[in-house]
Amino acid sequence: MNDKIICLRNKLKGLDMQGMIVSNPINIKYLTNIEAEGILLLTRKENIFITDPRYIEAVNKTLTINDEITVYNVSDLDMHDYENFFIFCENVGFEEDYVTYSKYKQYMHQYKINNLVETEKLIEKQRMIKDSEEIENIKKACEITDNAFEYICKYIKKGMTEKQIAKEIEKYMLDNGANGIAFDIIVASGENSSMPHAIPTSRQIKSNDVIVMDFGCKYNGYSSDMTRTIFVEGITEAEKNIYNLVLENQEKVMKEIKDEANCRILTMMVETDFNVKGYTLDHSIGHGVGLDIHELPFVGKKDNYLKENMVVTNEPGIYIPGIFGIRIEDTILVKKHDCERLTKSSKQIRIINN
Amino acid sequence: MNDKIICLRNKLKGLDMQGMIVSNPINIKYLTNIEAEGILLLTRKENIFITDPRYIEAVNKTLTINDEITVYNVSDLDMHDYENFFIFCENVGFEEDYVTYSKYKQYMHQYKINNLVETEKLIEKQRMIKDSEEIENIKKACEITDNAFEYICKYIKKGMTEKQIAKEIEKYMLDNGANGIAFDIIVASGENSSMPHAIPTSRQIKSNDVIVMDFGCKYNGYSSDMTRTIFVEGITEAEKNIYNLVLENQEKVMKEIKDEANCRILTMMVETDFNVKGYTLDHSIGHGVGLDIHELPFVGKKDNYLKENMVVTNEPGIYIPGIFGIRIEDTILVKKHDCERLTKSSKQIRIINN
Repeated sequence: MNDKIICLRNKLKGLDMQGMIVSNPINIKYLTNIEAEGILLLTRKENIFITDPRYIEAVNKTLTINDEITVYNVSDLDMHDYENFFIFCENVGFEEDYVTYSKYKQYMHQYKINNLVETEKLIEKQRMIKDSEEIENIKKACEITDNAFEYICKYIKKGMTEKQIAKEIEKYMLDNGANGIAFDIIVASGENSSMPHAIPTSRQIKSNDVIVMDFGCKYNGYSSDMTRTIFVEGITEAEKNIYNLVLENQEKVMKEIKDEANCRILTMMVETDFNVKGYTLDHSIGHGVGLDIHELPFVGKKDNYLKENMVVTNEPGIYIPGIFGIRIEDTILVKKHDCERLTKSSKQIRIINN
Repeated sequence: MNDKIICLRNKLKGLDMQGMIVSNPINIKYLTNIEAEGILLLTRKENIFITDPRYIEAVNKTLTINDEITVYNVSDLDMHDYENFFIFCENVGFEEDYVTYSKYKQYMHQYKINNLVETEKLIEKQRMIKDSEEIENIKKACEITDNAFEYICKYIKKGMTEKQIAKEIEKYMLDNGANGIAFDIIVASGENSSMPHAIPTSRQIKSNDVIVMDFGCKYNGYSSDMTRTIFVEGITEAEKNIYNLVLENQEKVMKEIKDEANCRILTMMVETDFNVKGYTLDHSIGHGVGLDIHELPFVGKKDNYLKENMVVTNEPGIYIPGIFGIRIEDTILVKKHDCERLTKSSKQIRIINN
């Protein structure tokens, strides 16, 4: 059986669960590498993947003998098969944060399980700690992202629209090894940059614009996430002051990221400094990155402790509504005594004059 | 209030529901045009959108006075606000197919609703019938898709990989007006074409390959969906026979698509013909298309009746495992007495010799 499934089975045992229904495709990909629609059942004796005929061939190509997963064609199963999968299981886990209310009712009815119990993000918590293969994938995604930033800084010219720049970043990443983008790319210029989650518009780049670019790509399913804020032909004193304040805080956080660092304390450190200088911290300073672009741990005002081999973002930002915004973000690997920046693009103030 | 919300409110009234919690972002986009994270509450007196500070500015830019939607900042709300939203509401609807089990529990606790009731795809059913603006968006997405097909047929050369071709289709669509792709593009060549939902691989195109290409794009949020199967430098008798059989059935179905056509009968017609000729029908012959790539109605073996202004796919296919597959698919607008093909690419056997 593969290491990830063995680890999960051990945790289930500790929780007195004799089985689990895994429905979330990201969790299925994590445990099995399968990217097809279907459901993974960890029963007492077996690991079972039920899929529809369209995917059988693709699934069998993905699995290795080591996975020890039996593939069933959903069309071959009848009511009794479902009722037998979890026979003699007292407690069977399910993903309450993924499974819809109607699916939950369907599972209850279909599998005739005594206790269908919430697993409280059991797999998502396991996913927080990355193995070396996962880290390599994220590193590759970060490398493509860095190259895309260098490329786009030379590409941007006045008169181009935010949409055009976002598309070019996407094209560059897809052309240079990415399997996809990690999320909808943000390119927010001028006053649009004051919206942390702006959608690229047809606004054209002009002199003295601030441009916030937040983007990342997928490599073998794993994501990168980076933000850089650049300036067109010049920077005002106000912009420079806020840029430096954001950067100082971003670097201060980075110095503290290591095994056992408390996310709440990191966040309060930034918030306090922003408040003292007359600004507010409007969003959390980071999140886990992996198969999902936003995954555990949440790096905010809760007592979450970072652990070795977690991958998180570090992304403070300051936004002056209707005027401009500045955000600087890196993807970071947590190590025992310090951390490693996986997105390596320079954070020096960059003024473009193309 | 906008027409879509008025229509939904009338339906809720008919179901004795005094309010509804709309959580599915696609349904929120449909009703309000908002594309930000948040939740839409249809309360007795008001339409409310609750979002987080990051999105407030963007949301206010999207809404018009006619929408009559009040935007709340989630940070400004306390426990009592939530408890008051649905005060004096006996029954409040929710989307049981979208809302997770844990969200359902949270809503119950947070809103203190007497009866949080399942709405059985109420909004999704409303979405089946497209208005003229929605149809225009789908037509535009289909036009871009047609152009992409013409382009890619000239682009494909022996030695190129499936991935490379899929990326080029995506790039073409994004460069030519699409806001995104409608789903992960399928380019499946040679023996890979026998997998209806193949993921593009590094397999290189070679002489005598069959290539199944299934793709579509988004225009203002609305999708297109088309499949064409083409041949490299030649076609065998077996391929030609199956191609013609699939095409005949696709066209036979198209002749029957109109208001009140029964999806089950359309499907049985194809299945029977395939069976008589020694083949099987392995997937449904179609699905609704709109803001979602797969939406209602389901065009399969259920007694679903097509209605004027529905948009559905027509996509029979035959797959010989490990050898090859053929699928032909169009996006179709259902009309009163017939239907209109929105993807207009030729379905004649196409042999490329680039």
